[in-house]
Amino acid sequence: MEVEAKKWGFQGKRDQLNAPPIITVRGALKLLMANINKDNSFSVVPLGRGDPSNFPSFRTTPAAEDAIVDAVRSGKHNCYAPTVGILPARRAIADHLSRDLPYKLLPDDVYLTIGSKQGIEIVTTVLSRPGANILLPRPGFPYYEVWCAYNHLEMRHYDLLPEKGWEVDLDAVETLANENTVAMVIINPGNPCGNVFSYEHLNKVAETARKLGILVIADEAYDNLAFGSTRYVPMRVFGSTVPVLTLGSLSKRWIVPGWRLGWLVTSDPNGILQKSGVIDSIVGYLNISSDPATFIQAAIPLILENTKEEFFSKIICLLREGADICYNRIEEIPCLTCPKKPEGSMFVMVKLNLSMLEDINDDMDFCLKLAKEESVIILPGIAVGMKDWLRITFAVESCLLQQGLARVKAFCCRHAKKQ
Amino acid sequence: MEVEAKKWGFQGKRDQLNAPPIITVRGALKLLMANINKDNSFSVVPLGRGDPSNFPSFRTTPAAEDAIVDAVRSGKHNCYAPTVGILPARRAIADHLSRDLPYKLLPDDVYLTIGSKQGIEIVTTVLSRPGANILLPRPGFPYYEVWCAYNHLEMRHYDLLPEKGWEVDLDAVETLANENTVAMVIINPGNPCGNVFSYEHLNKVAETARKLGILVIADEAYDNLAFGSTRYVPMRVFGSTVPVLTLGSLSKRWIVPGWRLGWLVTSDPNGILQKSGVIDSIVGYLNISSDPATFIQAAIPLILENTKEEFFSKIICLLREGADICYNRIEEIPCLTCPKKPEGSMFVMVKLNLSMLEDINDDMDFCLKLAKEESVIILPGIAVGMKDWLRITFAVESCLLQQGLARVKAFCCRHAKKQ
Ligand SMILES: Cc1ncc(COP(=O)(O)O)c(C=O)c1O
Ligand SMILES: Cc1ncc(COP(=O)(O)O)c(C=O)c1O
Repeated sequence: MEVEAKKWGFQGKRDQLNAPPIITVRGALKLLMANINKDNSFSVVPLGRGDPSNFPSFRTTPAAEDAIVDAVRSGKHNCYAPTVGILPARRAIADHLSRDLPYKLLPDDVYLTIGSKQGIEIVTTVLSRPGANILLPRPGFPYYEVWCAYNHLEMRHYDLLPEKGWEVDLDAVETLANENTVAMVIINPGNPCGNVFSYEHLNKVAETARKLGILVIADEAYDNLAFGSTRYVPMRVFGSTVPVLTLGSLSKRWIVPGWRLGWLVTSDPNGILQKSGVIDSIVGYLNISSDPATFIQAAIPLILENTKEEFFSKIICLLREGADICYNRIEEIPCLTCPKKPEGSMFVMVKLNLSMLEDINDDMDFCLKLAKEESVIILPGIAVGMKDWLRITFAVESCLLQQGLARVKAFCCRHAKKQ
Repeated sequence: MEVEAKKWGFQGKRDQLNAPPIITVRGALKLLMANINKDNSFSVVPLGRGDPSNFPSFRTTPAAEDAIVDAVRSGKHNCYAPTVGILPARRAIADHLSRDLPYKLLPDDVYLTIGSKQGIEIVTTVLSRPGANILLPRPGFPYYEVWCAYNHLEMRHYDLLPEKGWEVDLDAVETLANENTVAMVIINPGNPCGNVFSYEHLNKVAETARKLGILVIADEAYDNLAFGSTRYVPMRVFGSTVPVLTLGSLSKRWIVPGWRLGWLVTSDPNGILQKSGVIDSIVGYLNISSDPATFIQAAIPLILENTKEEFFSKIICLLREGADICYNRIEEIPCLTCPKKPEGSMFVMVKLNLSMLEDINDDMDFCLKLAKEESVIILPGIAVGMKDWLRITFAVESCLLQQGLARVKAFCCRHAKKQ
């Protein structure tokens, strides 16, 4: 055999791909699932992922399914699509996202993506250059870290402040930024914190970014999933202050993450992105990268038009109920503290007081033992950049959530330090 | 305004994306479309792209549409999928592609991709490292060139030999390869040449690759689309001789390129790809890149099971008819020569004899003037690496093809040198 393994034994890109990875959400959950004790008589309670699509209560609206079925049955959308997306979908999204804006988005401001994940891939790719850095939130969504690392884009982390309801530490942002900083990322509504930024806070973010001369990347994967007292405001409202790149998708609001349909939207009434070549780079990258399925693109106008308000409000109710259950149950558990009741998204961050526990080393140890003993999956904070915290998903059927949290309580009691 | 354009004015990756591009098929066609004379009273005849999905005769099988509709209506496939693809789809493809193989593919040998395009992205990415090179066919499919350039993977081109029915110039392959060569790409059935490699020739390719110690990347986007005297044989038949990475998709055989569902398959009974880390790199890259829609993945088993032989043979008949028309009509045009009647795929390469034309500078000039004067779109050879040739697509409704070729003939007569 002359074809030998050693030929492909050392490789640049490959080394990068094989490098000890940033702990990803996916990776951590896989580890935990492998740790489930299969002899446990009770079923697994998955409070780790933000994908409730397989729970009956969270089934998407028939209007969305109908739109897909119509698009397939028409036989008109089996063809390749333009790399930026098909016009009717771009137009429908532009109109949809222009509501409540002081200016109107055009179809050309909208690029269709394979979920907001591809949006993250695109922005980290087009903004990277030797020496550049980007400001990311901590805790955050580790897919940013993965793509920044892959693109050699230096990451600088600013904190979200639990004592201030998870607001951005804007002083830290000013300190971290330098002349090589290209952008800051905000996630609103927040993953993993479940917070919603106020209009006033977003305005300050915009002013800070303007002062620093950096773009704002607004990850609004959870757009409109706000159920507390703070109204959700899209960052692009401040597009005249600072250029905003919005990332969004059908995934969370329509509960169809597997449909892989999202958008990257440029909000920049002053034309800065155009002048600087960022737009050309986005188009250039889209020309070489993968596209969402054409018939799913084609379904967008009807999905946006025909989804009833009742569907959205049902989902909001479910999430509010989940957040309430989660918050109240956690209040009852001495070693866990929730700095702020979640107002948005599908998650809450909970602080672990290790000094009250007997034989738990850290958040990962907590989650591994919890998986083993109670078949409950919770994400260790380390996977989102915050050691000795936990991220709990409340977007699950409420009976399951109750069950899961009762088991967390039993687990914590059992492992509590004896007084 | 403190946010200034210059901030993003010079950028590494960006420069790469904005660099004067390799002429792509897409780019060339866009240029030609822009050159259509809108005052022409006759309609456009598109003989440039390999996407006949919008022609009524080429409509996909109802079995495929039904499978998609079932998957959507079940409500069970709205969730995120594993990054390698869902198991039932991987299993169905493994079984489907194991027919006629001397060994059996396993589900783990199959990775679902967003068309074979994403397969090209994946293989060029995981095989790139400083100094490495890859052997590509000329003429070829320029998406390889684009991704090799993006990944800094050095390209070395071997010729396909028109005088030998577009066989691989294996002597050239041996001369071009060195210790840094990682793989050679073959496209079979051939785009742009419309050739089908014989079993004997593929065997020689395998032996050559084995001798050189390089992998074979078998682009089988047009698998089974063979309608001449040469039987289509998948390269993976030779997996014991040399590790083969097969790229395929639903796009061409099912005429649904917009569904964006493909596969990357490793055929390597000797486990070389595993030992060398190539498999880990593929999985690593899939972990960070985009996935095909889950419900389309879920439809795969039924699509493969329920598509009737009649559908495939109808498509084969249409393509054979198109190839015949094309070949015969071109025979009648003095300045065009077709070295070999196409036996597969959707294309034929035709040589342009410029010395017989009066005011045509080159292939691009020919195509631009043809678009302007006759509203016929044909791809200039330069876009696939062969200057002063043309690539004509015969996968169109036959009346349209007749019409288009009649106009090409009229155009050539009009521009012929006066004797
Ligand atoms: C903050 C954030 N951004 C982006 C995404 C990607 O979502 P999608 O690609 O499904 O739109 C997620 C998914 O969990 C997320 O939590
Ligand atoms: C040779 C070749 N490979 C790959 C592709 C990509 O096809 P898809 O991504 O639709 O499977 C094409 C499409 O034209 C092609 O011609």
